[in-house]
Amino acid sequence: MSYSVGIVGAAGFVGAELVRLIAGHPDFSLEVVTSDSLAGTSLAAVNPTLAGRERLAFTPHDDGALLDCEGVFLAVPHTKALDLVPVLIDAGVSVFDLSADYRLRDPQVYEAWYGVRHTSPGLLAQAAFGLPELFRTGLAQARLTHMAGDPVLVACAGCYPTASSLAAYPAILAGMVEGTVVIDAISGVTGAGKAATERTHFCFANESLEAYAVAGHRHTPEIEQILGTAGWDSADGLVFTPHLAPLNRGLLATVYLPLKTGAGGKGVPGGTDAPRTLEAMHAVYKDFYRDSRFVQVLDCPQMPKTAHVAGTNFAHIGLAFHEQTGTLIAVAAIDNLCKGAAGQAVQCANIVFDLPEARGLEALAYYV
Amino acid sequence: MSYSVGIVGAAGFVGAELVRLIAGHPDFSLEVVTSDSLAGTSLAAVNPTLAGRERLAFTPHDDGALLDCEGVFLAVPHTKALDLVPVLIDAGVSVFDLSADYRLRDPQVYEAWYGVRHTSPGLLAQAAFGLPELFRTGLAQARLTHMAGDPVLVACAGCYPTASSLAAYPAILAGMVEGTVVIDAISGVTGAGKAATERTHFCFANESLEAYAVAGHRHTPEIEQILGTAGWDSADGLVFTPHLAPLNRGLLATVYLPLKTGAGGKGVPGGTDAPRTLEAMHAVYKDFYRDSRFVQVLDCPQMPKTAHVAGTNFAHIGLAFHEQTGTLIAVAAIDNLCKGAAGQAVQCANIVFDLPEARGLEALAYYV
Amino acid sequence: MSYSVGIVGAAGFVGAELVRLIAGHPDFSLEVVTSDSLAGTSLAAVNPTLAGRERLAFTPHDDGALLDCEGVFLAVPHTKALDLVPVLIDAGVSVFDLSADYRLRDPQVYEAWYGVRHTSPGLLAQAAFGLPELFRTGLAQARLTHMAGDPVLVACAGCYPTASSLAAYPAILAGMVEGTVVIDAISGVTGAGKAATERTHFCFANESLEAYAVAGHRHTPEIEQILGTAGWDSADGLVFTPHLAPLNRGLLATVYLPLKTGAGGKGVPGGTDAPRTLEAMHAVYKDFYRDSRFVQVLDCPQMPKTAHVAGTNFAHIGLAFHEQTGTLIAVAAIDNLCKGAAGQAVQCANIVFDLPEARGLEALAYYV
Amino acid sequence: MSYSVGIVGAAGFVGAELVRLIAGHPDFSLEVVTSDSLAGTSLAAVNPTLAGRERLAFTPHDDGALLDCEGVFLAVPHTKALDLVPVLIDAGVSVFDLSADYRLRDPQVYEAWYGVRHTSPGLLAQAAFGLPELFRTGLAQARLTHMAGDPVLVACAGCYPTASSLAAYPAILAGMVEGTVVIDAISGVTGAGKAATERTHFCFANESLEAYAVAGHRHTPEIEQILGTAGWDSADGLVFTPHLAPLNRGLLATVYLPLKTGAGGKGVPGGTDAPRTLEAMHAVYKDFYRDSRFVQVLDCPQMPKTAHVAGTNFAHIGLAFHEQTGTLIAVAAIDNLCKGAAGQAVQCANIVFDLPEARGLEALAYYV
Repeated sequence: MSYSVGIVGAAGFVGAELVRLIAGHPDFSLEVVTSDSLAGTSLAAVNPTLAGRERLAFTPHDDGALLDCEGVFLAVPHTKALDLVPVLIDAGVSVFDLSADYRLRDPQVYEAWYGVRHTSPGLLAQAAFGLPELFRTGLAQARLTHMAGDPVLVACAGCYPTASSLAAYPAILAGMVEGTVVIDAISGVTGAGKAATERTHFCFANESLEAYAVAGHRHTPEIEQILGTAGWDSADGLVFTPHLAPLNRGLLATVYLPLKTGAGGKGVPGGTDAPRTLEAMHAVYKDFYRDSRFVQVLDCPQMPKTAHVAGTNFAHIGLAFHEQTGTLIAVAAIDNLCKGAAGQAVQCANIVFDLPEARGLEALAYYV
Repeated sequence: MSYSVGIVGAAGFVGAELVRLIAGHPDFSLEVVTSDSLAGTSLAAVNPTLAGRERLAFTPHDDGALLDCEGVFLAVPHTKALDLVPVLIDAGVSVFDLSADYRLRDPQVYEAWYGVRHTSPGLLAQAAFGLPELFRTGLAQARLTHMAGDPVLVACAGCYPTASSLAAYPAILAGMVEGTVVIDAISGVTGAGKAATERTHFCFANESLEAYAVAGHRHTPEIEQILGTAGWDSADGLVFTPHLAPLNRGLLATVYLPLKTGAGGKGVPGGTDAPRTLEAMHAVYKDFYRDSRFVQVLDCPQMPKTAHVAGTNFAHIGLAFHEQTGTLIAVAAIDNLCKGAAGQAVQCANIVFDLPEARGLEALAYYV
Repeated sequence: MSYSVGIVGAAGFVGAELVRLIAGHPDFSLEVVTSDSLAGTSLAAVNPTLAGRERLAFTPHDDGALLDCEGVFLAVPHTKALDLVPVLIDAGVSVFDLSADYRLRDPQVYEAWYGVRHTSPGLLAQAAFGLPELFRTGLAQARLTHMAGDPVLVACAGCYPTASSLAAYPAILAGMVEGTVVIDAISGVTGAGKAATERTHFCFANESLEAYAVAGHRHTPEIEQILGTAGWDSADGLVFTPHLAPLNRGLLATVYLPLKTGAGGKGVPGGTDAPRTLEAMHAVYKDFYRDSRFVQVLDCPQMPKTAHVAGTNFAHIGLAFHEQTGTLIAVAAIDNLCKGAAGQAVQCANIVFDLPEARGLEALAYYV
Repeated sequence: MSYSVGIVGAAGFVGAELVRLIAGHPDFSLEVVTSDSLAGTSLAAVNPTLAGRERLAFTPHDDGALLDCEGVFLAVPHTKALDLVPVLIDAGVSVFDLSADYRLRDPQVYEAWYGVRHTSPGLLAQAAFGLPELFRTGLAQARLTHMAGDPVLVACAGCYPTASSLAAYPAILAGMVEGTVVIDAISGVTGAGKAATERTHFCFANESLEAYAVAGHRHTPEIEQILGTAGWDSADGLVFTPHLAPLNRGLLATVYLPLKTGAGGKGVPGGTDAPRTLEAMHAVYKDFYRDSRFVQVLDCPQMPKTAHVAGTNFAHIGLAFHEQTGTLIAVAAIDNLCKGAAGQAVQCANIVFDLPEARGLEALAYYV
């Protein structure tokens, strides 16, 4: 069975990653690729990785052919999905939105961080959150909705929230964490998008490191929302600092989780008297992700490298424990464009369309 | 139908690329991976891209299980295949040799460039040359041999010879070239192999460019041999200069082909009176590669970028013409580890095993 | 006036950086460069940046000519300085030690982290700590000692401690900080040294990010010791996580400093009733570093980039404030080989030899 | 003695390199920096390598203060110098022009390649060519002119012409070369300038190699003109191919020089019967550059690396000989922004102002 799909915003980095994954997906057929600025141009002319292999041309974002697709992936800038999603949903098309527009449950939080009023708060309420390892129930419900013939909206998680939350969630859900959580993350330059700016100029990004959006990155409320579903109290505070490093793909999140005194006990195999040990926490993580093939919890003291997951939908997680302060340090590596965007969206689509979750996402990373 | 295959030397860069491609190949089943130095270690421990996905462990190069494979890929250093190939062939196992040991037809040329005597010159004579776009007949013959139940030996082309020859061959075969051919090529650092040396140290390779093995690289006789099969006269001289640049994967060969006066005529659509024009030469290349899906001849004045073929078995070729000197400049981009090594070996195996030539080699390059 | 100096361990990355800086220093004359493994080889043969410009050759570490130098820089691996320092001091030679061997005041702490017994604890007590912006008094005392004709020992700070402490010190000294301090730092690959290993192989370091030595890096006790001199209570806990990123030079430390409630008051211009504001804290930093030309406190909300200080002895510091949790986020950028090693040692030598502090350290970074 | 100088176009990459070099030059005082687009902005705000160290602000290109300078460096795009140079010269200001506008002696050649009519051909005739190692006489004459109180115009050589010509000149001048010269060069991305474009986007330039402007780069006629002054016959043909590689600074030119039969003789130590040997040619190069401290001819078989000259005004040249075809392969490494632009301009200014040629250009490259 082949599902027809479209990509809105197929000329950007996330859009091109969707093209790559869908081209290799045995059950998806790419029918529409849109770009308002490149409408009329062939896809292969813009993206020469497709030379000789792809006949599609870009159409405008309002291409009616999108309405004939089973599913549409939206890879547009934030605030641009607000106009597109309602139209598609109304037409019965399931939407996998990679923008931030339908991620935050509270429209006031959205407006505070994105500076525009949310024009379809009703859809917000029904959107499933697209981070399958943490929100399986919502996606299973979406699958049922889709099987019943109704369109679904999946708000796919952002890149930093994906890595950070995968690293933090099991410990929080186990009730082990109390206090301010610090998340220090590093991204490759694809995370800054295709726009040619001084920041993305090779000569400025190369051979340098920098922090940016310190104490004010828009992914902060998204991470808070996710961790809140595990029982974390946002009053404890989340300090999130993203950094930019000179590589194309890769995102590493180092998460500092202050454990409760006696936290070894709550929810940890061995009961409330168990010590706060790295082994106990490692077991919690292994158990939590035992059915999530895309998340690999590494043996201690191994730590992940982003190169090992580049180009894939995998996340690698390493754990260490700072005994004096009782801090669990969880490090997660993902590919920001794949597990952090396009791969995760395809994974969500697989679930919604009742396909094996890893369909089309099996390719290995390059060893070098 | 699934063919059992093994990889000798699976811990190196080319070996790991073979592991990646074979893991994604629907008709190959990887049964044996060898490494003398890592025997007993699990493959995933050495190569964490396989974390949670691969059960194999390294065995020594003389693992008898290799003899039960349908085909074995040899990714060993030059001169090391001399001992391995005869044993495998004798046992009826087809061999795809990625070393240089069976590429040069003349054992004396081999000895002159590699410094050791060739111990199985008889096998040299029967080896098919593994560069399918240029040597289809030999590989078709190998397929017949294999179908008849006999083992075959394919000597897969080197990385520089692959790119250089794909760029030069059509013009030479058309009888258009006369005079010294200059080949100036640039490779990423994976071409230098996995050994940790001063040359491969990040801090020395990064942010630098250099030429190496100038006027003395071992791929020179291999290129001469290939071009000779197209009618090129080695007395005209071939000057080949490889360079190293700071990237992992990618090889760009810029080939300078002095055209005969009136060369527009010989073998060129339009007959002997046709002018020497870029259009005429472009038509020669397009025609030559019309049935070779892995070779894309770009429209003029497009030039290839290695990133567009990284991780794939594709070659992109761009052409320009220097009118004053009558020099055709053909630029070819490949991935040195894939089309220049592992991908090409899998392509050859597909042909020998009578599978579609592109089986398992369809994945797109990353756009970024 | 020209001082004769020597470098022990001149073939490594830090040693080569010392060679570069001393070659451009108007008051230092490089007389001896040692390397046990390269003794007899010319410096320019190993380091071609000196081609045609340098006549020195390597001698062994025990070259008696070192004893005739005014000062000797030690750029040897940890534990190797233990044998060298006493000999030089006994001979009346001032030593600028870039190893970790004389940094930790408590020999038991040294032994716990470096695994060897300290063989000259008496010298430990008299060593000045080489981080001038924070330890001016000790270095001024060393200058007096040197002017009195006695040799001095300066234990130059490590790269991570330099960046981390410059970022954290003013707030701590102002009595504003209470609670666990998290330091998340990223280094370029020169920090891993010249040894060719899998970790420093171009193809593994390139296009990847990783954390290492998580919760166990040897620079931790050094940072604790430095911050302790500002009044920080090590019982509050320090969690330090270094990362590796694909660039040659550069070190970025992001330091999370939990402020006391009402911390805006203590030691902050404006008195105890002053609010905890970014402006107030920025003023504290500007004031603290007002006479330290190598430390630039950037205007808010600017954040530093390591490229802006690469090759120089400068540190750039940016500040942000996370209001909800009362966390001051101080980000410092340095060049790990220069301000983090060789440049700082030259700065210390300038002070000891009563030269202008910036002598020989004025060169600008490359804009690109 | 201190000369007041200005930089027109100080915000670009070459302009910033001039700022860096002049800031470290003991005899130049930077008085004016212009940028039409950034007029009014402080230099340090645009270029944070100057944080805390520089008081200048950008003024417009027509800033009258330029007329009070002893010398002005023009780092403007091609065709933009045509308006500026006559005004400055008329005002008695010596000009070091880094654009291409006054390099080509023949205004018709200029118009053919740059597409605009040359508006001051008279100045063309009197411009000295700024490549000191090859054009000492012209620059010595310019010095005399300057000492006589008249302004001079120096048309500084381009980056590719500098590297290519340094590599080719001695052999050509010795009368050894006959036939088509092939120049294959690779540049870092700073060569593409500061404009943020798809080509200079980190994610597109990183991890890729490409040829560009094949058979049509504007530096071709400049190289032809230079080599012509050594006796090379442009009818023999020059084929020049530039490439782009992922590094900031560095330019490597590999030049293929077909030697005349018996070329060992002409002008070569040993006389006309001397054989064409690498040793003989190496001696020619060593002799030619014996008084040029910025050009280092490496011992054979050493080959240059661009990292060894990055940030400096040095050129390293390596030689190899392809015996069968009688081709001398000369490889030159420079820093495209320094010896290829700003450093060379400062070197020219030193000569014109009767300062030591290397004044302000002594800093060593980073070893790593």
